[in-house]
Amino acid sequence: MGSGIVSEFSVPLIDHHCHGVVPVELSADRFEDLISESFAPAPLRTSHWDKPIGLAIRRWCAPVLDLSAFCSGDEYVTRRAELGAEEVNRRFLSGAGLEMLVVDSGNRPDELCSVEAMGEIAGVPSREVVRIESVAEAIVGRGGVSAKDYAQSVERALEDSIHDRVVGLKSIIAYRCTLDIDYTRPSSFEVFDAAGNWLAEVERSGKTRVTDAVLERHLLWTAVEIAKGKGFPIQLHIGIGDPDIQLNKVDPSHLSPFFRAVEPWKVNFTLLHCYPFHRNAGLMAENFPHVYFDVGFVLNWAGPSYARIIEEAMEIAPFTKQLYSSDAFGLAELYYLGALRFRTGLRRVLDHWISEDECKTSEAERIMGLIARDNARRIYPSRVD
Amino acid sequence: MGSGIVSEFSVPLIDHHCHGVVPVELSADRFEDLISESFAPAPLRTSHWDKPIGLAIRRWCAPVLDLSAFCSGDEYVTRRAELGAEEVNRRFLSGAGLEMLVVDSGNRPDELCSVEAMGEIAGVPSREVVRIESVAEAIVGRGGVSAKDYAQSVERALEDSIHDRVVGLKSIIAYRCTLDIDYTRPSSFEVFDAAGNWLAEVERSGKTRVTDAVLERHLLWTAVEIAKGKGFPIQLHIGIGDPDIQLNKVDPSHLSPFFRAVEPWKVNFTLLHCYPFHRNAGLMAENFPHVYFDVGFVLNWAGPSYARIIEEAMEIAPFTKQLYSSDAFGLAELYYLGALRFRTGLRRVLDHWISEDECKTSEAERIMGLIARDNARRIYPSRVD
Amino acid sequence: MGSGIVSEFSVPLIDHHCHGVVPVELSADRFEDLISESFAPAPLRTSHWDKPIGLAIRRWCAPVLDLSAFCSGDEYVTRRAELGAEEVNRRFLSGAGLEMLVVDSGNRPDELCSVEAMGEIAGVPSREVVRIESVAEAIVGRGGVSAKDYAQSVERALEDSIHDRVVGLKSIIAYRCTLDIDYTRPSSFEVFDAAGNWLAEVERSGKTRVTDAVLERHLLWTAVEIAKGKGFPIQLHIGIGDPDIQLNKVDPSHLSPFFRAVEPWKVNFTLLHCYPFHRNAGLMAENFPHVYFDVGFVLNWAGPSYARIIEEAMEIAPFTKQLYSSDAFGLAELYYLGALRFRTGLRRVLDHWISEDECKTSEAERIMGLIARDNARRIYPSRVD
Repeated sequence: MGSGIVSEFSVPLIDHHCHGVVPVELSADRFEDLISESFAPAPLRTSHWDKPIGLAIRRWCAPVLDLSAFCSGDEYVTRRAELGAEEVNRRFLSGAGLEMLVVDSGNRPDELCSVEAMGEIAGVPSREVVRIESVAEAIVGRGGVSAKDYAQSVERALEDSIHDRVVGLKSIIAYRCTLDIDYTRPSSFEVFDAAGNWLAEVERSGKTRVTDAVLERHLLWTAVEIAKGKGFPIQLHIGIGDPDIQLNKVDPSHLSPFFRAVEPWKVNFTLLHCYPFHRNAGLMAENFPHVYFDVGFVLNWAGPSYARIIEEAMEIAPFTKQLYSSDAFGLAELYYLGALRFRTGLRRVLDHWISEDECKTSEAERIMGLIARDNARRIYPSRVD
Repeated sequence: MGSGIVSEFSVPLIDHHCHGVVPVELSADRFEDLISESFAPAPLRTSHWDKPIGLAIRRWCAPVLDLSAFCSGDEYVTRRAELGAEEVNRRFLSGAGLEMLVVDSGNRPDELCSVEAMGEIAGVPSREVVRIESVAEAIVGRGGVSAKDYAQSVERALEDSIHDRVVGLKSIIAYRCTLDIDYTRPSSFEVFDAAGNWLAEVERSGKTRVTDAVLERHLLWTAVEIAKGKGFPIQLHIGIGDPDIQLNKVDPSHLSPFFRAVEPWKVNFTLLHCYPFHRNAGLMAENFPHVYFDVGFVLNWAGPSYARIIEEAMEIAPFTKQLYSSDAFGLAELYYLGALRFRTGLRRVLDHWISEDECKTSEAERIMGLIARDNARRIYPSRVD
Repeated sequence: MGSGIVSEFSVPLIDHHCHGVVPVELSADRFEDLISESFAPAPLRTSHWDKPIGLAIRRWCAPVLDLSAFCSGDEYVTRRAELGAEEVNRRFLSGAGLEMLVVDSGNRPDELCSVEAMGEIAGVPSREVVRIESVAEAIVGRGGVSAKDYAQSVERALEDSIHDRVVGLKSIIAYRCTLDIDYTRPSSFEVFDAAGNWLAEVERSGKTRVTDAVLERHLLWTAVEIAKGKGFPIQLHIGIGDPDIQLNKVDPSHLSPFFRAVEPWKVNFTLLHCYPFHRNAGLMAENFPHVYFDVGFVLNWAGPSYARIIEEAMEIAPFTKQLYSSDAFGLAELYYLGALRFRTGLRRVLDHWISEDECKTSEAERIMGLIARDNARRIYPSRVD
């Protein structure tokens, strides 16, 4: 390691929030879908490639597939198909420099590799995070649940979901009823009532999406009980998302009353993504001993602008309260690119601090280690392989 | 053009949102008014010149009037009067490097040059955007409208306002009832009822300012119908404004339910200004195929700090969804300075990307072209001169 | 002074918002408490030192205590105790380069030096700002006040609190009922009613914390009357705070209706801290002639990232509307470090402007002088020592 320079590539990362990759070849359209948060194709005469994340994939991922940097999107997708999904996924995941993958198994699992498969592709241990909404929806989707036994069924199903690999729980309450809600624990009667309404709606519509705030609060507080017993953190989606998100109601500070109320439970919470509220997330991490955060997802999507996001994330929060995630979904590229952006970006911040005489190298290495891996090691339970 | 450097001055700009210039000489006080968003004079012993935009005008506009850079505000205003409004307006507008002006004709038109005159001064085609609130206020101000025929009168007046030059509609709903409203299309009865209240208030007060959310929603949905028929985009004021704005209620994400509801209409929306919510605007542009944005206005007002705003605007959004505007009002300086800031700022971002090996020159030129002109060409109808 | 470089160390600062220092030696735990906004110790196996402000103290304050830069937290606290509180406080306060201290006397005064003592330690005049909530709480805590005479008692107590040293009033309404309230002046009956409820609650709980919005509005409007008579500004806590703050409800733009209503009173308001809403604060300062702001507190807490906050604060607002504060509390380090960060940060912004040909040296010196001292001199009354 050169003096005064953080040797960023030496720390293997714990990617504490990601999803599976698509195990099959991708058409040009399907690839474009996966680099868009929109539910629609790009406007006529434009392409989803034409944005920061598209540029970044053409620049940094193309060479991994033996293409020249800045090849066209068409060339990229053609070469990707030629190599085959297995080889592509292996190249990117093994190139990401990971120590462990912590995979959210609850979003469109039918299209993606399993948690186990992800570990095999990456050649590192993989762990699972259970999405609490998916558990409730599976229970209700399976049928045979009445409003009266809903609460108990869901509680049991959540407990039953904790297999050996599971190291945490996750809620997407932000998507379902926003974060701008009352967070008190609902009474049995409230849950009974809300479950009745939901079950009737499922009956009518055939769809099993839980969106009711009472049911979300019941899930969340049930998750708190389980997490307390197991020593799990609970992950919370914050900020940036697809068109379903109501951005002005997913600021993490909406959670303050909940974090105050839940403090005695001694359960840790990890705020995911957070952009454009990452400064607020940093303040929450400073204020509450049980709150952590990352700027996952954005490091990929901000393309060439990744470094500024990390700079802002590093403004106020304790170094002990930040984590790394890629929030990669579907595309193996995003594990690789997310890891590259994180390493380069955090190194850049710390090297800048060193060059300004604000930090010294050994300290910077330690900070890099904390955020890359050590904080995650501390708050996630270690479980045998 | 040197290799690896974007030759920013070669692209003529479409300024897709601006107002007219004042066609007469300006007193020192009137000039100060025009570089302030406040409704009041500067505090005693201070001057509106003493802010970033004032510094920028003294630095970059003074030489255009044959003054030395950083001359005093007094010298500036004296020289301006000496040259005369016509010459001053000609110098700045012809120096801005424009391809087309798209002028909002609805704000204090009595004080400003017409859309036609603006084109003549700048020596380029000019087009018009109709401010829907101004149309409704003119109808009501003229008298003879009853609550019963309000809806139809306004709808007809909006249709009648679409002259040959008109290429879009604009709403300042953000100023009138904030963006924090229900966006469902109001029923005839609701409009009748709200119109009755408004007409009674106009009767009482003699003022014709429309602020009622029901009437705003009626205008907005009427605009959607017209825009659909004509292939027009609809411009929406977002964020930064004068003391009438309620900043915490003009985040563009308040519009999410509206954008979801209006998606089938296939009408494009352009979010104007957006600061300090420009990151949120970028996310909206990523999420919704029919949403575009600019960081107009701020590039002028941020003085020496213009580049950071562009950097942030370039973080997430597709390159195909950003536009250029000056939001110049009254002062010809602001067409010139806005264009200068945009060109220099976007060039700086792109040159930085090139220097970091995140972009290549041809790509950067193309991105510059998209935002400077090509995106506007794509979403505004071309109309004969 | 080298040409083109702002000689930042020549301007003595008016620290227009700070608190007293702790006059006694600090244990390691107590020191950690004072570098945390949390109410809890750091998580197990972590330390409150491990964050930007801790790093900055180890880097920049350690040498003032004859320690090497980046010494450990333990070494730091040991040396601090060895030197003794008096010597430590003297070194940091006399090293801060101040012209005057304006001290908020209302927060935990029993633990801190008095306003007078602060001036003596720093060797400069000290002035006092009266926290209006503390006055009301003292009145009620003393007992003997009925709902009927509450309003008059508080009004008299506020007037009586204006000793010779007092130059302003402060409200922490943001902490007590958030800024998301109606700001109309409450009627006598409303105050009577709310006071009755509060007094009953004080009776029950033994605690005298005022949180009711009606009582806060009564205090605020009483403060406006007094401030008008005395020529005082009123300071308002904005944004960043401890876990009691509800961050999404302390955006300064919530105050717009109040600022519109109070404009005829000709009373100035200073928005304190403001992060992460400092851009919004800058817009408020542009919009309202009677609104000023600072980015105090954050310059200390952002550690190596202080400069970006100042850059953003300098984007839009008039140079005549910004102020300097440290918001130092308890630790003498924070007066010193806050001053250092402000000087270096603002110099960096201005030097950058000069290097970009956006400003000239004499102008930059003047801007530095305005924000460092002259704006505060203008809006605070001068009172004899």
